[in-house]
Amino acid sequence: FLVSHYLQKRCCKKDQVNRAINKDSPKVVHSFDMEDIGSKAVYCRCWKSKKFPYCDGAHAKHNEETGDNVGPLIIKKKES
Amino acid sequence: FLVSHYLQKRCCKKDQVNRAINKDSPKVVHSFDMEDIGSKAVYCRCWKSKKFPYCDGAHAKHNEETGDNVGPLIIKKKES
Repeated sequence: FLVSHYLQKRCCKKDQVNRAINKDSPKVVHSFDMEDIGSKAVYCRCWKSKKFPYCDGAHAKHNEETGDNVGPLIIKKKES
Repeated sequence: FLVSHYLQKRCCKKDQVNRAINKDSPKVVHSFDMEDIGSKAVYCRCWKSKKFPYCDGAHAKHNEETGDNVGPLIIKKKES
């Protein structure tokens, strides 16, 4: 019983989406002005990027390891 | 042993960031042109929003339940 209880508790922590980014902050929110973005920006949504809030492709490894299917958010200028 | 093995396997699935959104898609990527965004858009990064890719505040309940600290990405026009 103890083992499953321990794993269960550890599992709850595991339900977190963000394991390592700004964990000292109560809520990690980012805000950008379009005028400052340039022609294109790719934003991370898997919370594994070493360049968070920007995507560095870390979602590929995460998806492969867990069978997940997360991917980034792309904000760009029409002609780019 | 079986119980911990079962929980362990279930835990691996639990490591997924996205549990319910477009699970039939191999990778969920969104791309928006700034010209189409209007003055402001708030994008979900917790993968719990019913209005995904837009934020609907679902991160609050998720953070409360798991002790996580995820929040949205805001893209806006400077003067808005």
